[in-house]
Amino acid sequence: MRIALLGGTGDIGQGLALRWAYDTSHEVLIGSRDPEKARNKAEEYETELDSRGVNAEIKGFENAMAADRADVAVVAVPPYHVSDTVEAVADRLDDDDVLVTPAVGMKSDEEGLHYHRPGAGSVTAVAASAAPDGVPVVGAFHNLAAGRLADLDADLDVDTLVVGDDGDAKETVTTLAERIEGLRALDAGPTANAAEVESLTPLLINLARYNDGMHDVGITFH
Amino acid sequence: MRIALLGGTGDIGQGLALRWAYDTSHEVLIGSRDPEKARNKAEEYETELDSRGVNAEIKGFENAMAADRADVAVVAVPPYHVSDTVEAVADRLDDDDVLVTPAVGMKSDEEGLHYHRPGAGSVTAVAASAAPDGVPVVGAFHNLAAGRLADLDADLDVDTLVVGDDGDAKETVTTLAERIEGLRALDAGPTANAAEVESLTPLLINLARYNDGMHDVGITFH
Repeated sequence: MRIALLGGTGDIGQGLALRWAYDTSHEVLIGSRDPEKARNKAEEYETELDSRGVNAEIKGFENAMAADRADVAVVAVPPYHVSDTVEAVADRLDDDDVLVTPAVGMKSDEEGLHYHRPGAGSVTAVAASAAPDGVPVVGAFHNLAAGRLADLDADLDVDTLVVGDDGDAKETVTTLAERIEGLRALDAGPTANAAEVESLTPLLINLARYNDGMHDVGITFH
Repeated sequence: MRIALLGGTGDIGQGLALRWAYDTSHEVLIGSRDPEKARNKAEEYETELDSRGVNAEIKGFENAMAADRADVAVVAVPPYHVSDTVEAVADRLDDDDVLVTPAVGMKSDEEGLHYHRPGAGSVTAVAASAAPDGVPVVGAFHNLAAGRLADLDADLDVDTLVVGDDGDAKETVTTLAERIEGLRALDAGPTANAAEVESLTPLLINLARYNDGMHDVGITFH
């Protein structure tokens, strides 16, 4: 399978790219608006993996080209770029592809971070609105601390939540998620339930701020 | 210390009453709008504890009387009764007392439960608005599954989150929470951060619905 990380030069994209390249034999593509930046980052990730004895080939492309080649495209961009990014790659997607959105809208004040719910109900719903008809959108990976994900020495041992309206697409993403060592994927239901899932991200950042030893904290449900 | 469970005849009140009576030497009071109902439930809890060899004295009172006697009063009522209940006991509270709110506003549709954020920002904020000046309000225990809490044979081994603007009051509630075996309390910051904490409850209920073996699911942050 080919997995594209659109915005894969950012921190969550980096973490997912490294983990999939390290833990699976899937082909990982890095997308960026700037193909040169994508190629540089891809090379950087290859070097990191090579230093761990993993000979992965990671290629960098402009986002649309990465999406064109991918079976699963993760829209690893800030929430306010989700619509634009999905629209920019829309004509490269078909019904067999899966779009994945890990983005969360947040606003901060002196006391902490707060979930900023988009008018559409969630960022997952925003992405679903921007996606071409028939291309399924799945929300996942919101609650993973980027630093812990990108540090291949760090144990994950955490859960992530998967939301969306297309059962097959969710199954694909669940399987991909669970190929990452130490990651368990749970089903949070359809897109209508995405706001509560996305709300976890500011909560985790607040917990990291107000409790010692909780930097890059994760969640387990049991 | 004396702990009153206002609305202690309901399921979350029952769980906290049983756990505190079982795990600590604190005095537990059951409050209800109907003092007869409170006394009956208190007797039922005593019987349950007695069957486990714990000789606890649990008394039932009308809510205001229970609040009057208590150092810590948990407002264990549905979210739409929080204001009324706090106002009904307001003149029995003083600045040394602590009010605790575990309630969460939710609405349901076919797909699951959703967080229903009150205009005040959170149920914790609603309770704080209704409380007399100087009486601190702490949000806690939202994310505990009532059935698991009330079943003294069930291991908890979960976290709960504490929010509020009064550090001393939060410390009191944190200590009380951690006297319950298997429960760890984490600081989620001030009341402004309560919405994300309260949002966990519908999320957990959705996870229980969409995943096998997750009935009465809890959370650990790590």
